[in-house]
Amino acid sequence: MSSSHELDKLIRALQIQPGIGLRSATRIAYHLLERRRPDAMELGQILISAMRNIKLCTCCRNYCDHEICTICQKPERHQARQLCIVESPSDVEAIEQSNNYFGLYFVLHGHLSPIDGVGPNELGLPQLDELLTREPFDEIILATNPTIEGDATASFIAALAQKHAIKNISKIASGVPVGGGIDNVDQKTLASSLTHRRPFGD
Amino acid sequence: MSSSHELDKLIRALQIQPGIGLRSATRIAYHLLERRRPDAMELGQILISAMRNIKLCTCCRNYCDHEICTICQKPERHQARQLCIVESPSDVEAIEQSNNYFGLYFVLHGHLSPIDGVGPNELGLPQLDELLTREPFDEIILATNPTIEGDATASFIAALAQKHAIKNISKIASGVPVGGGIDNVDQKTLASSLTHRRPFGD
Repeated sequence: MSSSHELDKLIRALQIQPGIGLRSATRIAYHLLERRRPDAMELGQILISAMRNIKLCTCCRNYCDHEICTICQKPERHQARQLCIVESPSDVEAIEQSNNYFGLYFVLHGHLSPIDGVGPNELGLPQLDELLTREPFDEIILATNPTIEGDATASFIAALAQKHAIKNISKIASGVPVGGGIDNVDQKTLASSLTHRRPFGD
Repeated sequence: MSSSHELDKLIRALQIQPGIGLRSATRIAYHLLERRRPDAMELGQILISAMRNIKLCTCCRNYCDHEICTICQKPERHQARQLCIVESPSDVEAIEQSNNYFGLYFVLHGHLSPIDGVGPNELGLPQLDELLTREPFDEIILATNPTIEGDATASFIAALAQKHAIKNISKIASGVPVGGGIDNVDQKTLASSLTHRRPFGD
């Protein structure tokens, strides 16, 4: 407990951020009070506005400010006739930064998990079904996480894509990280990278 | 750049927190949007309110919600007749948590630094002068940081306390951390702990 109730409240509230415990929250609160009061007030306003206004794109379910996100607004993205399915908006961000994919996305916001009550409706699969009916895709790329739940979700979506007679259904490769040492990789990843080996020179 | 301008703005604003870079800010923003929207809006309101309302205690210059902080409000703190001088409000917090001091504090909010335009007025020394005139203290404990600037500030304040004929003027001990290994301590700290050695059993 500090000398100010408002300060205690602030230190507690800052801890809703992942990775920020009591110590970091205390340091942040003192720093903001001591040196960055106007910036911190602005952060407060931006937080409120972002939480109130950011919604899901009606096309791909990624975060956006209006009805349609900046990616879905671009005609060339539609012309690529590729659709990449990911679990979360941060996956879109990561793939965009890899600068190697120029098609559309569909964001599930999770993976199938019947125990937690997450079924096809919660992942927006009816919306995906509509999208596949509406737009002609040449390829569906399944980029769910390489976990048991992610793989199960990918299989479920692959079946949906087959119903729409989509030519190519692919899954991103899992294996040794580029630039990494083989002896630093866990057994399962190494097993997967051996199973899915490809002809040299491909 | 993400799919939403508000999200980009949020990620940028979150980085005013010390220790939070682009990667952490991105992770925090997505986490708040995905799972803690109401809490994040509340954090926004608490930030604005804290930055607007938290002021300095008119007695000790520590952070507080009203005129006088919760420490200075307690009569037993005044009866201890001790005053501990610290550089920052987080030092008060740290000393309070050590549970070994029950007197009053005075917070400088920095140290003397003529180059940066920080002189006695910026550190509230006229206010400290008034406090020393108004209240009878038996001891002044100088708990500024053991740095060149902190030591210079401590000397300046010691001279002020001498003018007020305060019996005991002390400085917190600097030395080997309790529970730490001697071989892990830097040379200057070790030298100081040897210089200020005390009779065994004290």
